[in-house]
Amino acid sequence: MRLQLVTWPDVEQYLKTSTGIIIPIGSTEQHGPNGLVGTDALTAEFIAHGVGEKTGALVAPTISVGMAQHHLGFPGSITLRPSTLIAVVRDNIQSLMRHGFTRFFFINGHGGNIATVTAAFSEIYAERSLQRGSNAPSVKCKLRNWWEGSGSRALSRDLYGNQEGSHATPSEVSLTFYMHPQTEKQVPMEPEVAPNGSFSDADDYRSTFPDGRIGSNPNLSTAAHGRRIYEMAVEEVARDYLAFVAR
Amino acid sequence: MRLQLVTWPDVEQYLKTSTGIIIPIGSTEQHGPNGLVGTDALTAEFIAHGVGEKTGALVAPTISVGMAQHHLGFPGSITLRPSTLIAVVRDNIQSLMRHGFTRFFFINGHGGNIATVTAAFSEIYAERSLQRGSNAPSVKCKLRNWWEGSGSRALSRDLYGNQEGSHATPSEVSLTFYMHPQTEKQVPMEPEVAPNGSFSDADDYRSTFPDGRIGSNPNLSTAAHGRRIYEMAVEEVARDYLAFVAR
Amino acid sequence: MRLQLVTWPDVEQYLKTSTGIIIPIGSTEQHGPNGLVGTDALTAEFIAHGVGEKTGALVAPTISVGMAQHHLGFPGSITLRPSTLIAVVRDNIQSLMRHGFTRFFFINGHGGNIATVTAAFSEIYAERSLQRGSNAPSVKCKLRNWWEGSGSRALSRDLYGNQEGSHATPSEVSLTFYMHPQTEKQVPMEPEVAPNGSFSDADDYRSTFPDGRIGSNPNLSTAAHGRRIYEMAVEEVARDYLAFVAR
Amino acid sequence: MRLQLVTWPDVEQYLKTSTGIIIPIGSTEQHGPNGLVGTDALTAEFIAHGVGEKTGALVAPTISVGMAQHHLGFPGSITLRPSTLIAVVRDNIQSLMRHGFTRFFFINGHGGNIATVTAAFSEIYAERSLQRGSNAPSVKCKLRNWWEGSGSRALSRDLYGNQEGSHATPSEVSLTFYMHPQTEKQVPMEPEVAPNGSFSDADDYRSTFPDGRIGSNPNLSTAAHGRRIYEMAVEEVARDYLAFVAR
Amino acid sequence: MRLQLVTWPDVEQYLKTSTGIIIPIGSTEQHGPNGLVGTDALTAEFIAHGVGEKTGALVAPTISVGMAQHHLGFPGSITLRPSTLIAVVRDNIQSLMRHGFTRFFFINGHGGNIATVTAAFSEIYAERSLQRGSNAPSVKCKLRNWWEGSGSRALSRDLYGNQEGSHATPSEVSLTFYMHPQTEKQVPMEPEVAPNGSFSDADDYRSTFPDGRIGSNPNLSTAAHGRRIYEMAVEEVARDYLAFVAR
Amino acid sequence: MRLQLVTWPDVEQYLKTSTGIIIPIGSTEQHGPNGLVGTDALTAEFIAHGVGEKTGALVAPTISVGMAQHHLGFPGSITLRPSTLIAVVRDNIQSLMRHGFTRFFFINGHGGNIATVTAAFSEIYAERSLQRGSNAPSVKCKLRNWWEGSGSRALSRDLYGNQEGSHATPSEVSLTFYMHPQTEKQVPMEPEVAPNGSFSDADDYRSTFPDGRIGSNPNLSTAAHGRRIYEMAVEEVARDYLAFVAR
Ligand code: NI
Ligand code: NI
Ligand code: NI
Ligand code: NI
Ligand code: NI
Ligand code: NI
Repeated sequence: MRLQLVTWPDVEQYLKTSTGIIIPIGSTEQHGPNGLVGTDALTAEFIAHGVGEKTGALVAPTISVGMAQHHLGFPGSITLRPSTLIAVVRDNIQSLMRHGFTRFFFINGHGGNIATVTAAFSEIYAERSLQRGSNAPSVKCKLRNWWEGSGSRALSRDLYGNQEGSHATPSEVSLTFYMHPQTEKQVPMEPEVAPNGSFSDADDYRSTFPDGRIGSNPNLSTAAHGRRIYEMAVEEVARDYLAFVAR
Repeated sequence: MRLQLVTWPDVEQYLKTSTGIIIPIGSTEQHGPNGLVGTDALTAEFIAHGVGEKTGALVAPTISVGMAQHHLGFPGSITLRPSTLIAVVRDNIQSLMRHGFTRFFFINGHGGNIATVTAAFSEIYAERSLQRGSNAPSVKCKLRNWWEGSGSRALSRDLYGNQEGSHATPSEVSLTFYMHPQTEKQVPMEPEVAPNGSFSDADDYRSTFPDGRIGSNPNLSTAAHGRRIYEMAVEEVARDYLAFVAR
Repeated sequence: MRLQLVTWPDVEQYLKTSTGIIIPIGSTEQHGPNGLVGTDALTAEFIAHGVGEKTGALVAPTISVGMAQHHLGFPGSITLRPSTLIAVVRDNIQSLMRHGFTRFFFINGHGGNIATVTAAFSEIYAERSLQRGSNAPSVKCKLRNWWEGSGSRALSRDLYGNQEGSHATPSEVSLTFYMHPQTEKQVPMEPEVAPNGSFSDADDYRSTFPDGRIGSNPNLSTAAHGRRIYEMAVEEVARDYLAFVAR
Repeated sequence: MRLQLVTWPDVEQYLKTSTGIIIPIGSTEQHGPNGLVGTDALTAEFIAHGVGEKTGALVAPTISVGMAQHHLGFPGSITLRPSTLIAVVRDNIQSLMRHGFTRFFFINGHGGNIATVTAAFSEIYAERSLQRGSNAPSVKCKLRNWWEGSGSRALSRDLYGNQEGSHATPSEVSLTFYMHPQTEKQVPMEPEVAPNGSFSDADDYRSTFPDGRIGSNPNLSTAAHGRRIYEMAVEEVARDYLAFVAR
Repeated sequence: MRLQLVTWPDVEQYLKTSTGIIIPIGSTEQHGPNGLVGTDALTAEFIAHGVGEKTGALVAPTISVGMAQHHLGFPGSITLRPSTLIAVVRDNIQSLMRHGFTRFFFINGHGGNIATVTAAFSEIYAERSLQRGSNAPSVKCKLRNWWEGSGSRALSRDLYGNQEGSHATPSEVSLTFYMHPQTEKQVPMEPEVAPNGSFSDADDYRSTFPDGRIGSNPNLSTAAHGRRIYEMAVEEVARDYLAFVAR
Repeated sequence: MRLQLVTWPDVEQYLKTSTGIIIPIGSTEQHGPNGLVGTDALTAEFIAHGVGEKTGALVAPTISVGMAQHHLGFPGSITLRPSTLIAVVRDNIQSLMRHGFTRFFFINGHGGNIATVTAAFSEIYAERSLQRGSNAPSVKCKLRNWWEGSGSRALSRDLYGNQEGSHATPSEVSLTFYMHPQTEKQVPMEPEVAPNGSFSDADDYRSTFPDGRIGSNPNLSTAAHGRRIYEMAVEEVARDYLAFVAR
């Protein structure tokens, strides 16, 4: 059930049976020569909608711009500063707390968001922790990267072995090809498999990873793979969502 | 051209011919008994994509949550504090400035965003204005409410007369029915046309406008109207976009 | 009754009969070749004191520096960043809420303040809206531009026709000549009536409006006009204040 | 020369001979049973205007609301949080730096501002200190309490001995009686001379100093004293201003 | 070489041969019935000094209070909000950047710091990434948890097997017993090995882990173990530091 | 009793007899040719531990980095911006308030901290003062510079006369020599006694005080003096602490 597509009386009804909600969060950043700038938001949203259908969970609008400062050397990348993203996550959660939601399950499409969103959860918890006998409601927040189920990991290993890499991976690119078949394409990349390494700011990133990829070969991506990856992720993430709200 | 659906080399190419970009911005808030919580973001995005197709402009991801504090009395509404939204707009623009974008055209779906987004533009301009001989690039930002063209106003007057109102209007609800026909429905509303008035915080709003509408009769909405409203808005907003980037 | 000129027991007494207060807000910025840098604060304060006398309302100290980033290309202009002005408005209101004030009526002298002050009101409302069952008091805030009554608009049309313009207008300059007759002067301006147009940051503003005026001919200003403008504005604004506190 | 009463070309002219400016800063807070809520802002402004006339210095608009959290137990008191006041001072100075001002002389009327304004100066200096080879201009800021000259201290000792106290003092009250003779009055106070002591928040302050005074007997105040106090302060502060800008 | 124990000319000399610096960061929080409140700061500092001696690296003062909101249910725990800790890390690094330091190696004693400090690094990088052709220096930051070397992990496994747990671990408690032998003690704990689990805010934490421990049996701790743990950690962390500054 | 060296049940016990706590605060900044960069934090901590032993007071971890923007012209100096330090002080106090502490006694080693820490106290008080009938606990905070007792002042006068100065003083340097005898050294300084004067930002400071000292001759320092200075300060500060918590 997508929050954007229902009415407020529908939400009122929903809250009688559940106080859990799913919030997709991605990023808007380069994904190498043939990956889409929207990859991380599109995949998080796609899987979140699948999980919403499977579990009946309400799905909030996607946070499409995340923490991507290191990608700013490539045109089209957009970042929120960590301090801004913390405020965004806080305001989303506090708004929903007002209505009675207590379990916030973020389905994440971007590794670069993990630290900041985790810090945001602590910022929210801290408000309550700092006041003895606070009457603010007790809430639980969880960040779930869509690719981290054991089945998802096994599938990516089977499909791509050590060419999966860690940015602009064939897994995520396949997912977008499945969603938007007209974007499927292969382009010459040199070397075939991108280098691995670490990075700090945007210039440092671009000089180490000149075409944007890290350790990956996204020319292996296909829409057919994307479908399998999607189904596996939805199944595993749905299971985790249900366990989370049951706690 | 949707930024989310292209690659970074595509954006690099685009920047050779234009430094303008469209950013849809909406809200996530109640829209009365039969209007969708996502109305303002969905309509802004829908029209922005239409304008993008018509003009060749690049369209950034939608800012789906805006300033909607007054709607928090109704389940499902989400707000950013004004100070948060200012930071979000600033980070989006500064990221895109880094790539060479200089004309930022926000297509807006929510009256409650106007003041804060306008303040955000001033916050960005102020950075440069406060430094004599700044070497930050000079940029221009514009907020365009999709419903404010003369043709759009005339059309809404023709279709709904004085039952258009100012929140949960039949115009915006028609647009969403056109986008998502499965959501089209009429529900009993009492009174038929909602009251007008002013409001301050969420409790005040809800006590004045018990079902969420202001001055409107959204039971007049149809998908067929939505199509006409869409086409008119795309045409007028596209014209304004082209004039804006030509300055 | 000016807050600055009474004692705290006087305020305690006042609160027994009214919880409304007037806060004048202006700006410190260039007003063309013969207009005063303090025009917007001086006029707002002048009219606020008149309204205070007419209605018995308490008048707080003037916020003399507002949001004027676009004027920084002209010596003497001072701005608060929008984020700072939001904090200033919030602290003023929260302080007065503590004493029991609930109706905050800002008399405004500067168009550039409108968006930011409106955003500030939402920032304050949001604090309460974000908490279900908040025990913070419910308050109402209103921004009233002194020149926006129908009588004031008609008077300026009669006196100046299409030479009123929108910055460094003969209306506001006349008001300051009435307040401070020793500042009345005419100076050569070229062209006689300034151009109209839009602007972004300070450099952009100065290059479009080289002497600071927008669309106006302030050489039409006289102290005698100022008196008529003053009396009309006081009457209309006083009426609006009384209607506001009666709600 | 009051900034509010001149035009931008006048300021341009002024900057050819001086880059110094005076900024009066006060507070809006209770001043005991017969002292005015505006005392600290009125006195700072009054003396600043006197110093401006004597020295030819430009005088900016008064910052009328300062840091007065401890007075909030008394109706009419308004405070800026320290963090807000820091932003206000920073924006005022950065705006004026843009025009070429480099010497900022704050004439202060309120002891409670000293710590925060001093911190604000450090916040401004820090921006430049944190960047090696910064191209931000080097500036100097000074806070001068109007009552701290040796002559002013001697005069208050002569007039009031150990009944001067430290809040709602007969010196400052006399100054306001001189400025606004119609406000001159004596009221019964018990005890005649208020207690001394320390305080933390507003409740603590009010329970220690029930009528608002600290250590003072403001019934000794007269407008005639005020004139002598004014003249002494103007003379001493003017001397300090000239020494400051000559450095 | 401890920064606190040298003079500025010593630092000037140091910078001629290295631009790397070590910053210990810990926490002030409960560590179960027999662990010290200062454990995380004391161990990080102790190991950092060891690494400094072994490598000749300069060691900055310890950040003793970290992000520990979840421990506030136990007396003595202190937290910085994530937003505050981000500002602290930023100011430390920017100050040192001014002197020419470019490699910042944080030796961390507290798992709860990881997300926030990582976000802080991104906040710093973002400043540079957001400006095309920024002239801010390029820097690299790294967070190294002292317990994460393969040797350290093996040692803890050998000594404590599955009674190491994840908070108030026998490893960290042994380290503090080695540093401060007078604090060594065993106390009755029930159950012997604490439960595992997750947590959100402080009340949630305390109700799940009533004596503060997570999954651990700190009664296994001895000062003799502490010495072995210390030596292993210093060796491994020193190696990583040298590799880091050589990049 | 050092907070870092006790367990949470020890703190729980302590709170049954006292709600006072000592927080040492210093700085990390140049102290001339032979003074240590850590002088202000080391001395504050040293004396705080002495006071803790003498009075039985609990001593929190030292805030080692303070407000030292003016020293950034000398390698090794680190500053927090005032706004950051305010947040740090606020978070420390709010954490401890949660446990029931109500009396916060900061032992300070650095003049540059005074304004900002005082502003921080007001920021904390303001939270409560701004809410009528707040249920936040009432607290008291005090900043005590270790050198300000009458005995300490007399001792420094006896030992160093007018060569004490105000930065890198022989008193504070002697204290560090007493604590860390291996750091005792004399180095050629020219002139023998440093100049006096004022300063603004870091470049201004360094050009006025080229070796970092202000008005002092730290070559007079000895460890033996340090011992006398230490004992005097501990005695006087302990007395003030006991008086403070008794209020
Ligand atoms: Ni990705
Ligand atoms: Ni709408
Ligand atoms: Ni004006
Ligand atoms: Ni006063
Ligand atoms: Ni630990
Ligand atoms: Ni010192």
